[in-house]
Amino acid sequence: MSYAIGVDLGGTNLRIAAVEERGALMEKVTLGTQVQRGRDYVVGQMTDAIRHVITKYQDHGQLIGIGIGVPGFIDMDTGTVRESPNLPGWSDYPVHKDIESRLGTKVVLENDANAAAMGEKWLGAGRDTNDMVMYTLGTGVGGGIVVDGRLWHGMNGMAGELGHHTVLPDGHPCGCGNHGCLEQYASATAVVRMAREAVAKGMSDALANASRNDVEFSSKVIYQLAIQGDKAAQEVFNTVGRSLGIAVGNMVNALNFPMYVIGGGVSSAWDAFHDSMFEELHTRSFIYRVTAPEAVKPGAKRTIVTRALLGSDAGLFGAARLPMLVNADSAVPAEQPKEGVPGTPVAGTR
Amino acid sequence: MSYAIGVDLGGTNLRIAAVEERGALMEKVTLGTQVQRGRDYVVGQMTDAIRHVITKYQDHGQLIGIGIGVPGFIDMDTGTVRESPNLPGWSDYPVHKDIESRLGTKVVLENDANAAAMGEKWLGAGRDTNDMVMYTLGTGVGGGIVVDGRLWHGMNGMAGELGHHTVLPDGHPCGCGNHGCLEQYASATAVVRMAREAVAKGMSDALANASRNDVEFSSKVIYQLAIQGDKAAQEVFNTVGRSLGIAVGNMVNALNFPMYVIGGGVSSAWDAFHDSMFEELHTRSFIYRVTAPEAVKPGAKRTIVTRALLGSDAGLFGAARLPMLVNADSAVPAEQPKEGVPGTPVAGTR
Repeated sequence: MSYAIGVDLGGTNLRIAAVEERGALMEKVTLGTQVQRGRDYVVGQMTDAIRHVITKYQDHGQLIGIGIGVPGFIDMDTGTVRESPNLPGWSDYPVHKDIESRLGTKVVLENDANAAAMGEKWLGAGRDTNDMVMYTLGTGVGGGIVVDGRLWHGMNGMAGELGHHTVLPDGHPCGCGNHGCLEQYASATAVVRMAREAVAKGMSDALANASRNDVEFSSKVIYQLAIQGDKAAQEVFNTVGRSLGIAVGNMVNALNFPMYVIGGGVSSAWDAFHDSMFEELHTRSFIYRVTAPEAVKPGAKRTIVTRALLGSDAGLFGAARLPMLVNADSAVPAEQPKEGVPGTPVAGTR
Repeated sequence: MSYAIGVDLGGTNLRIAAVEERGALMEKVTLGTQVQRGRDYVVGQMTDAIRHVITKYQDHGQLIGIGIGVPGFIDMDTGTVRESPNLPGWSDYPVHKDIESRLGTKVVLENDANAAAMGEKWLGAGRDTNDMVMYTLGTGVGGGIVVDGRLWHGMNGMAGELGHHTVLPDGHPCGCGNHGCLEQYASATAVVRMAREAVAKGMSDALANASRNDVEFSSKVIYQLAIQGDKAAQEVFNTVGRSLGIAVGNMVNALNFPMYVIGGGVSSAWDAFHDSMFEELHTRSFIYRVTAPEAVKPGAKRTIVTRALLGSDAGLFGAARLPMLVNADSAVPAEQPKEGVPGTPVAGTR
């Protein structure tokens, strides 16, 4: 059985996984990313950890290659990170070539949100579809578009920037220079900001207490208050849902894909935002309205908007999938795993 | 030289064109559509006119097939019109099969905005690109998405409904059930509505006079006033431009296509709305910002947003193109015409 290595290089963690061709996880390693120690340190740390995994599994089967998901724009033509706020010093550095020559194996570089989309397509919510859009609601909001089983990169690798979809033209300013981007209403950062705004307006004692006492006043804490019935916290997640409903509805009307997947940390708050999201979807997209699961006849093609299944591993599995797809005939969709539930360890390998 | 026949079935006109394989127009016929006389009458009128063209060119070359662009949703699986407000009585009628059996040749049915997108891709603004989005600003706003040289239909033919992209969540109500659809700000209908709103607010004597005196108070009249300097009329087109900028910017961020084409009747007012459109694009899409023609180095890949070139003939040429593509190997992009300027009559054929 051949296998591939997936790398998820985040701002705080560096995660590495060895994954079998059919999707079974062999091993997963998590290290802290010390980005402040510079690019060369991080690349060294990454290649050391990968070498360790390769050595460990040298008798296990053929290494197909390595996929690396990184935040930021990737120039697909040159295999360089074009711009990455979370990885200072990486701009225009040929990651792909450097690591390929250090490790002597094929390396595929990919934007982290695209890698997550590929993970969900391969082993998660999208495993039975070839066309899907995925939103990753994390610190920011990323996106990935899968067309005919492959990531859609656009003309220079910048496709799928769904976090900067305008949902409210005169809305909150965004770091990208726009106002009212989805990211300003549906990211973990936005959830905290909106909760603080509610506190400032005196709208919730519970939120105010949490924001004072909790050193980590996070979207998770706010979600807990929402499900405990705090109106202001609920309204924060209603805004998350409404913003997603607008953005996803626009994509439904444009693409008429069968599936839209909501992932990333904030998607754990699904229960708190899905009602308002579906309400907007029903209003904003007549395509969704006539093709939503509850609206279509049995057997008819339907539009599904659903939560991701792989949690924080989506990007790791997706990254591992990338070198497998490079090998495969580009016209033949990758085989769907029939067994091999993601996350199931292979006996004896860890 | 083989040729195909394109049909553009609108609410007021039925237009038929014979087009050579390389894009040269052989003949164009325009008839009034008497939709009120019922579907059978219109289909009879259409097939009679097509038969006339076929007979006339029977010695000219092989008829490849007939493409028909109709307003409304097309069920691509069954070749039926699924829903068409402008063509009462056509719902669920198998146009495609009926006309095929009447004329004994291949018939391809397509949504009119998709046909227009294909026309612009074949012979118009998009002739040097394989991936483009087209907006048709007419009575409503339609859209068509071309991926790898082919129309993107989505899972059930409903893709490209770009007129119902939410640009202002609490905006003007739309017939589709949503509020703030692009169609409510960038269609000819919207231009007239916004001008009447300005008149009602007493914002322009010139607009007020025109709306009283001109039995056809149209977007064209309002455009004339805008270029003559009427502030209220200019503001109407600024709204057209801003709305387009939001919608197109969202598609740029999602798809990273090289080209977005603005066509349809309202696109004749390009001079009056393009400044505000590009201003929004620069703000709303950082992908556009870094890849706009004026921002990129020579030779780099750029994002182009431009007006359509074929005017009202886009749908006609695009419809004629459809049967040619069905014949071609689906993996091979259609040959780009090197000569054959659209609209150039072939000597001796009319």
